[in-house]
Formats: sequence, structure tokens, C-alpha cells
Amino acid sequence: MVLVLGVDAGGTASRAVVAAADGTVVGRGRAGPGNPTTAGPAAARSIGTAVREALGDHDPAAVVAGVVGVAGAAIAADPRVAAAFADEWAERGLTCPITMVGDAVTAFAAGTAAPSGAVLIAGTGAVAARIGDRRIGRTADGLGWLLGDEGSGLWLGLRAVRSAARAWTGRTVPAGLPARIAEHAGVDTRDALVHWAGRRPPAAFAALAPLVCAAAADGDPLAGRLTSEAAARLLATLAELGTPDGPVVLAGGLLTRETPVRAAVLAALDTPVTTSRDPAAGAAWLALRTTTGPAEAARLHARMV
Amino acid sequence: MVLVLGVDAGGTASRAVVAAADGTVVGRGRAGPGNPTTAGPAAARSIGTAVREALGDHDPAAVVAGVVGVAGAAIAADPRVAAAFADEWAERGLTCPITMVGDAVTAFAAGTAAPSGAVLIAGTGAVAARIGDRRIGRTADGLGWLLGDEGSGLWLGLRAVRSAARAWTGRTVPAGLPARIAEHAGVDTRDALVHWAGRRPPAAFAALAPLVCAAAADGDPLAGRLTSEAAARLLATLAELGTPDGPVVLAGGLLTRETPVRAAVLAALDTPVTTSRDPAAGAAWLALRTTTGPAEAARLHARMV
Repeated sequence: MVLVLGVDAGGTASRAVVAAADGTVVGRGRAGPGNPTTAGPAAARSIGTAVREALGDHDPAAVVAGVVGVAGAAIAADPRVAAAFADEWAERGLTCPITMVGDAVTAFAAGTAAPSGAVLIAGTGAVAARIGDRRIGRTADGLGWLLGDEGSGLWLGLRAVRSAARAWTGRTVPAGLPARIAEHAGVDTRDALVHWAGRRPPAAFAALAPLVCAAAADGDPLAGRLTSEAAARLLATLAELGTPDGPVVLAGGLLTRETPVRAAVLAALDTPVTTSRDPAAGAAWLALRTTTGPAEAARLHARMV
Repeated sequence: MVLVLGVDAGGTASRAVVAAADGTVVGRGRAGPGNPTTAGPAAARSIGTAVREALGDHDPAAVVAGVVGVAGAAIAADPRVAAAFADEWAERGLTCPITMVGDAVTAFAAGTAAPSGAVLIAGTGAVAARIGDRRIGRTADGLGWLLGDEGSGLWLGLRAVRSAARAWTGRTVPAGLPARIAEHAGVDTRDALVHWAGRRPPAAFAALAPLVCAAAADGDPLAGRLTSEAAARLLATLAELGTPDGPVVLAGGLLTRETPVRAAVLAALDTPVTTSRDPAAGAAWLALRTTTGPAEAARLHARMV
């Protein structure tokens, strides 16, 4: 049995898919944050854990190709991170070539078999990239939470806490979004909310994004303004890339689940749009297509993602 | 000889002033960050160092009153911080009552002898406060860099780095503000700038504010937009307080030096405005006025600040 491996390594979770030569997914695995830009060498361990789970009882030596999509361009440049990955593959018994690509490439592949176009990702972070012949071209944003990632889940969650703190001028928490956030944080004063926020690791604010989206869907005006602004920022990021020569693929939890952000982005785009629901399977397909011809690859894409 | 002590404890520096009963400043001291909200008990040590320098060879037992202005409302609530201050005063030989007040009170006192009005502070952080009978009333913003402090020096510096990273789409750094920031950071790629920013303590971004103000004064359009937005955010923060029943005092480096932010704020305000140039002297005056009558206090104000 010939197998391929695909990995999607994100700031919140790492997902691995093992597929057979006919495109059948034979195993899936999931572990913690696998973004080496933020997690460093520990990212390799998370990814390795997800890979082990996906392999299950399959022989690692049967894997003939692997593709790993990770955020950040300069990962391979850090020798510590590269060494951690090499160790991890060896420990998992993997002997085939494993290609590290930008997560934009795997996210794009999970939305389309086309070689070129653009991908707009809004998960914990946010980035847009032109894809040309399955390589990353020009990118926009993706600058991390401190400097950018505008419209991402972390951005949305942090904005919501900011807005709640700013609106909380009296003794009691304002109804609506601020009250939901205070409940989430377990606080009953504004100072306690500020203190709570100051002690959270930045990525934890992304956990508030579903709460904001739910409030917006329920008609909360503040939450609605925030999700609209997130969509506007994401569209501006995508627009920086110019007109793509292929479909626009939407990726990341904020744009693949039925959120108000996705709805607003879809309503504004007048180009062909597809959705990247399973980037790990997209990565596995990228691995598989290196072993087969174009027609077969297109057929397998329809089957796998 | 009877002496009074005044301290202004900020997020960047602590300043102390020792004055005689006739309002003559007889000593000044300066040390590191003295904001217990961010620096914790170490703030007491910074303040103590500034006090020792201000006292010089004067007898600490001659100090009959002290006022310390510190950021944050809940300082006294933390027993560790209160104990650190008590130890510090004892170590400096101070035996008189020392009153801790919000830094808004001392900043206001440094701008006017009036008991009521409002103060707008933009230093490392940003906050507006109504002052009634020399006590803090309603406040706006002051939420810290993560959630607010909109229009502050830190906000301005961080925005400038964000804008520079966002504008840096090609291989070479764009001229103007991005180039100045790249030079300040000692970087020649966008990724290096992002990396640099991610390793700075947040307060360090405030050090970029003078650079942004200088670029705006030189006509740089991006810097001009950022300083205009800082002014607009500060004015919005002040406007949250409603119409003050007294003068508006401008405080903090961004509003007391001749910056484009100050110019824009002054141009927009149509109420009586004064400037708080020496909050430590304002604190010393507050200490002195507890020892004298109202007419004498007003005369001493003109002399001291």
C-alpha cells in the first residue's frame, strides 16, 4: 500500500491526513499549535504528534511523499526549527521527502485544483496571498497579531475586549457583547476585565471570535460593527494583491464556518470563490499529485477535498 | 527649614521635587519607571531613588508633607505594593504623611490652581479625567496599551511600526517614515522589522513617538496622518467626559512638547486650556497647600509650576 501525508500546521492546532494512492483518507490526526514562527521547535513536536495519530497502525515506510503547510516564510531559515523537524520525521519512521510549503499553498490547494489564483486566510491570524503555479507570490498582511493580522480571529476577539472595556463606563457591565465578554472572562468590574486581558497570551483572544460572531448573528449592534470591520479589513488585504488570475479561495475558521465575516466577504466579492475546508487534505493532495499525472490529480482532488 | 515632597510616577520615568515652604524648589530627582500598575513593587524602588536624589543633603525629617501621583486607581489595593512603598519611605527617613493620588490629580495641579476641570494626558499611555475638588471624577480610556491608551506615545509608535510593515511590500523599504523606522530598528527587510517588533517590550514603542512627530513636522504624509489620528483619538477620549467645569489641562510628553499632536489638539479645543509641564512640582504644590491658606496657595502655585 502506497501512502501520502499532508499536514496543516496552524497557530491553534496541527492537523495531519494520511491518504492512499486512490485518494482515500485512511487516517487523521490532530495536536496542538504547529506554527514554528510562534511556537518555535515545539511546533515540530505538535506536528509529529498529529502525524503519529494519523498514521495509526500504517507503516510509516509506506509513505512516499509528504507536504506540510506552515505559516511564515522564514521557517526553514532557522536551523533549530529545521533540525527539530528532521528529528521528528526520523522518530516517526518517515523516510520519504517531506516538503514544507507556506500554509497559503495548502489552503489554496484545499479549495481548488487550479494552479493559480489567490487565497484569503482568516483563522487565528490573517493573510492574503497570490498563488502562481502552486507557489506563493505576493502576500498582504500576515504580519502577526501585534502589527497586523487585521480581521483575524485574534484581531476580532481583541477588538471585542477593547470595545467592551471602552463601553464599560458605569458600575455595571453594558448589556450585549460586553456582558457576554465579562461572563466569558468571569469578571464583574472593568478593572478586572483589563487585568484579565493583560494576563492572557495573545492567541487566547482568538477564542472569543466565535462569541463575537454569535452575538453579531443575534443582532448585537456592537458585534455586528466588529464583524463588518473584520470583513472590510480582510477585503482590503485581498485587494492589495490586485486581480487574481484564478479563483479566490477562502480559508481559516472565520471564513470557512458560517460566520457573519464569511457572509460579508462573500457578499462583497464578485470573482469566483471556493472554500478551503480541509487544508490537511489539500496538503495530502499536493503530495499525491507529485506521484501521478494532471488528469488523475484533478480527479483525485474532487475526491479528497 | 520646612520641606515638602512631590512625585510624578510615570510609565517611563519617576520624577521627584523637594520644595521649601516659600515654594522654592530645593531639589530634583529622576529615576526609572514608577507605575506600580505595570512595574509592580519595583515602582516603589524607582520612586525612592528619585526621592533620595531630590532630597540630596536635606534632612528627610524636615519633610512635613508629600504627595505622589501614580497611574492606576487600584494601587493601594495591592498589599504588596503598599508594603513596598511603606518600606521605601522608611528607608529614605521620611516620617510625614505621604498621600498617593492618581497621576491625573498631580498633572492637573501642575497646570492650574483651580480645584476643578479636566486633564488630558498623553505620555506613554493616554487617559482623560474630570477633576472635581482635586479628586478624580469620571475617566475615559487609560485602559493600557493592549486595550486602549489611544493616541498615546506607545499607540503612536506602534501604529507607525504597523504602517511601516504594511507599506513595506517590495524588497526595499519605502522612503519617509518606514525608512526612518527601519533605521531606528536597524533592519533592512520587512520580516526583520516584524521580528524586531515582536521582541520589544510594549513600552519601548513609545520611544518611536518623537521620531513620528519629527517626520510629521517635516511634512511626511504617513506620519502626518498618524499624528492627526492620535489627536482625534485623544479629543474623542476627552469628549467622553462632557463639558468640564474648569480649565482643560494638557499633560504628558506628547501634549506638553511642541508636537503636531499638541498643535492639532490645541487647534480643536475651544475651552480654556493650560499645560502641565512639571507634574512633580504640581505634586509638591499639592503637598504645600495642605500647610497653608487658599490665597497663599494660589500665590505659591504661580511660583512653583
